[in-house]
Amino acid sequence: MQPDFIFATYRVQDREANLMKRAESIAIGLTVGSWTELPQARKDEVARHCGVVQGVEVYAAGDDGLVWADIRIGYPLANFTETMAALLTTVFGKLSMDGVIRLVRLDLPETYISRFAGPKYGVDGIRERLGVPERPLLMSIFKSCIGQSLDDLRAHFREQAQGGADLIKDDEIFFTEEYATPEQRVIAYHTEAERAYEQTGQLAHYAVNLTGPVTELRQQAKRLCDAGAEALLFNVYAYGLDALREVAADPAVTAPIIAHPAMAGALYAATHHGIAASIVLGQLLRLCGADVAIYPSPYGSVTLQREDGDALLQALREARGHLRISLPAPSAGIFPGLVPALVRDAGRDVIVNAGGGIHGHPGGATAGGQAFRAAIDSVMRGEPLAVAALTSEPLRQALVKWGEGQ
Amino acid sequence: MQPDFIFATYRVQDREANLMKRAESIAIGLTVGSWTELPQARKDEVARHCGVVQGVEVYAAGDDGLVWADIRIGYPLANFTETMAALLTTVFGKLSMDGVIRLVRLDLPETYISRFAGPKYGVDGIRERLGVPERPLLMSIFKSCIGQSLDDLRAHFREQAQGGADLIKDDEIFFTEEYATPEQRVIAYHTEAERAYEQTGQLAHYAVNLTGPVTELRQQAKRLCDAGAEALLFNVYAYGLDALREVAADPAVTAPIIAHPAMAGALYAATHHGIAASIVLGQLLRLCGADVAIYPSPYGSVTLQREDGDALLQALREARGHLRISLPAPSAGIFPGLVPALVRDAGRDVIVNAGGGIHGHPGGATAGGQAFRAAIDSVMRGEPLAVAALTSEPLRQALVKWGEGQ
Repeated sequence: MQPDFIFATYRVQDREANLMKRAESIAIGLTVGSWTELPQARKDEVARHCGVVQGVEVYAAGDDGLVWADIRIGYPLANFTETMAALLTTVFGKLSMDGVIRLVRLDLPETYISRFAGPKYGVDGIRERLGVPERPLLMSIFKSCIGQSLDDLRAHFREQAQGGADLIKDDEIFFTEEYATPEQRVIAYHTEAERAYEQTGQLAHYAVNLTGPVTELRQQAKRLCDAGAEALLFNVYAYGLDALREVAADPAVTAPIIAHPAMAGALYAATHHGIAASIVLGQLLRLCGADVAIYPSPYGSVTLQREDGDALLQALREARGHLRISLPAPSAGIFPGLVPALVRDAGRDVIVNAGGGIHGHPGGATAGGQAFRAAIDSVMRGEPLAVAALTSEPLRQALVKWGEGQ
Repeated sequence: MQPDFIFATYRVQDREANLMKRAESIAIGLTVGSWTELPQARKDEVARHCGVVQGVEVYAAGDDGLVWADIRIGYPLANFTETMAALLTTVFGKLSMDGVIRLVRLDLPETYISRFAGPKYGVDGIRERLGVPERPLLMSIFKSCIGQSLDDLRAHFREQAQGGADLIKDDEIFFTEEYATPEQRVIAYHTEAERAYEQTGQLAHYAVNLTGPVTELRQQAKRLCDAGAEALLFNVYAYGLDALREVAADPAVTAPIIAHPAMAGALYAATHHGIAASIVLGQLLRLCGADVAIYPSPYGSVTLQREDGDALLQALREARGHLRISLPAPSAGIFPGLVPALVRDAGRDVIVNAGGGIHGHPGGATAGGQAFRAAIDSVMRGEPLAVAALTSEPLRQALVKWGEGQ
């Protein structure tokens, strides 16, 4: 039987003479443990679990007589359960500690992907829930959460909802429940959203931070959905990918999931260690069911390399079995003048996610949201922002303060 | 009220003129969100949640007119729940993505540590369970797990148990249950261990890999303990630190937990990004309840910097509130000739953890274990290995094959 494989590509620095031996030792050591010394009968039995070296490619000279090379290993599907723990431990468990090595690519076969539910809503489902079929979506980030009374938080939500935000998300560092439980916030904000709807025609959905013990997250997510939560914010890499996968796959969790990239930089930000950003914040988030992936935009101070951002966007969107498409939310440093660049670079199926670009508006957070919505509408009409600013005072002020984007 | 703080130290590369502003923006941005523009009454209310800059220290020139500096921020305890997700998201969530930045130190106050159960057994409890009061412990690693029938696995266990191993651990990549469930292995191996006990006088404890969905891990750990599991192996960073914390804190989980470092290299291995190894594999593992911490030894090809290894060992052992001491298991590249170096560097409260150094023995795995036990006894008597090799043929063969250590 020819097994299906998960192929992992590692970028390493090593002696050229050592590469093939190293590749073989990975293929055997991280699967069946031993091979050459096995009797033939045992080889036949374990062959379907044995890794293979698919390629070793030297592409540049390194330091001290070393070379840079890509090693590509195939791991039989039969070795994996449906957990991300099995995937990560196998393809980058021990190896993550083995010198200068970075996991740069993962090729997952359809037979593997078919085991995962993926995003429950994806771009189409989220658009349908929000009643926004075509334009880029606007997500507003609470400026302050910790230490605020429920009344203050409610007022803060109201300001944002009145600006026309489609989604309003908690600060990801909001874990304490000293002044209000997440359920209380869900209920209170929904009332505010309905009031704002009468003015804006847009019902803002609140993305509540999913917190608590990891082994109780499914129950907590269900409780929040039962309380009316319309979206969940989740710190995937602070909790672990399996937590996302299990919460997202639970049919009783009826809200879409917005994946926050907290901690992800510890995995992807180095050049020669860790895991490529497109895997961390694109491929695996989508596989595990993130409807929205927040990641560093190319515009602010916190950025990805352009090619990493492009690969990430592709991972969220390319045809992969039955997986729905995750919505990208390139974030950090987003102000209204950047909306044309965002749509140019990421298309209309994008979330414009802003905090400082809303709360720092000279007219306050409501005007900040209105400026973004005016910019979005202007891009949809194909007209320059400057033209839209003639009839939108909030947008005019935003362009004066922050200028136009790249 | 003067709040207690968690202090985090970040090593960054930045413009010197930018450092204080950056530090202040971290202290505010990752706590209360805004400060200077607040009215005095609000400041009084939120002060107990507001971060503080404890220090900014430039210590070297960097590239392109930048400097290397340590920024030290205090985060009020009031902002944290008992989850590691709250800790990680706050102190290294967004920041992990913010340019050249590494979390190099975490100072946790006793009031925070007191919220955690820590290791249930620690060094004393594990010694008591194993009936080994003083000498270094020997842990043997299965060479092959995947693709083996239960009969083959059982024979493999028997060989190792007969060599006198105190602990025998699963391969960490063993997730499939195709040929035997973990419960079946626990039961089968226990029978083998009891048989070997009659020969060796040492009852080998089996460390079974704790696998399955993360939200069901506590139940799975309890099931394994009910089936008789004497130790649990756990891939902490493939599942997430909170999974360790919650499993370890559950009173019904009666087995000690051996933390495997799989995936940890993706967090610590880079020089200027990610998180220091002593935090990842020392401080947080102990806080979350690892009785044993496996990490790269200084002797093999997979290593830590010497100072990182020393800091890690200190984090496992230093007096920290009520926390029991975790047992270090410096691993990779361990052979019998290294036992004196291991004890010299890490003391007697150490686990000698070997795979290749046991299975690669010319006389097989049983002789491999015997060679290690002879080396351990020799070190306890304070005599050179060469002397012990006069009366231990397995040790003599091991010294011929691998030599003596560093």
